[in-house]
Amino acid sequence: MTRIVAPIDFYFDFASPYGFLAAMQIDALAERAGRTVRWRPFLLGAVYNHVGQSPLEHPLKRDYINIIDAPRCARLIGLTLRRPRGWPEHALPPCRIFYWLDRDDPVGAAAYARAAYKKYWLGGESTADPDAAADIAATLDHGRSDALAAVQDIAVKQRVIDANEAAVARGVFGSPFIFVDDKPFWGSDRLTQIEVLLERGSI
Amino acid sequence: MTRIVAPIDFYFDFASPYGFLAAMQIDALAERAGRTVRWRPFLLGAVYNHVGQSPLEHPLKRDYINIIDAPRCARLIGLTLRRPRGWPEHALPPCRIFYWLDRDDPVGAAAYARAAYKKYWLGGESTADPDAAADIAATLDHGRSDALAAVQDIAVKQRVIDANEAAVARGVFGSPFIFVDDKPFWGSDRLTQIEVLLERGSI
Repeated sequence: MTRIVAPIDFYFDFASPYGFLAAMQIDALAERAGRTVRWRPFLLGAVYNHVGQSPLEHPLKRDYINIIDAPRCARLIGLTLRRPRGWPEHALPPCRIFYWLDRDDPVGAAAYARAAYKKYWLGGESTADPDAAADIAATLDHGRSDALAAVQDIAVKQRVIDANEAAVARGVFGSPFIFVDDKPFWGSDRLTQIEVLLERGSI
Repeated sequence: MTRIVAPIDFYFDFASPYGFLAAMQIDALAERAGRTVRWRPFLLGAVYNHVGQSPLEHPLKRDYINIIDAPRCARLIGLTLRRPRGWPEHALPPCRIFYWLDRDDPVGAAAYARAAYKKYWLGGESTADPDAAADIAATLDHGRSDALAAVQDIAVKQRVIDANEAAVARGVFGSPFIFVDDKPFWGSDRLTQIEVLLERGSI
């Protein structure tokens, strides 16, 4: 009998530093347990419309996250965060390009997400502009003009809306938000617990 | 030359499950690094008056903390949380008894805080009632009637107010909130980072 192992569902917002930190670690973590990752970018702003205040509206918490905690968590995994000017951005164009790619090529879409995340959080460059988001697609051998067209495509726009509604329906309220066999984990600091769950089969 | 090592400042609310989880670990952690801990209970409700919304006002976050994350974090360190009826309580009586003891006997006050925390989070019993808070003091060989009187003592009340104001002035916005040499750490999940800092001298 073959045990069916479900993919790990990984919800994240491109503007979320903790989403980025999880994105840099989750594939290797899943691979060690023989799992795949289903990448699911969403827009946290749209989710907060349903389920309350952003931590960034809280000035002390915002500064702690920005200046202290996220850079420190990054340093501990060997990364140097560069917070982009204008952060947090409403990262609609990379979300749309992701879901444009994801329909036929989830692996390529995940590669795009990693590249967009790195450009934003390691490069410190905006990705919220359609041209910038399409440039990233072009570096991965996708057609730049196709990517630009996807940003304006009504069907793609609808897929992003659907993805957000699905995230809300599932109870996602922050980024990253990770489901392993329907067990929810909120925050990049829960990756070690996910590792325990995957090793032991329960937690 | 003797290197002066400052105590670790440990701010917590008695109603905070993550404060409890930190309380069960922080003394051993500090001891491994040759440090002491300065226990500083405060009232998160009073702090939220200054610095924004409680995560418990957010229904999804509240359920995640209550039902999933805090019990899971506890299990991982071998503890079984019992959320007391009426949680979260405004834990004024144990705060006052703590600061009554703390003036002359910080070690005894910390022992009281640990006992009150255990009664609340492992025993599932209220500590917000003056009698319950004084009973805990009595189990530690403090006078029960002295403890009850301390709850009503104007000077003790003022010490709790001062402690809260000091926490706010220092930038505390959640529980637990820990300072190591003026480096702030928010959350029991940051204890591993504190351990890294204490080992390496920087983080």
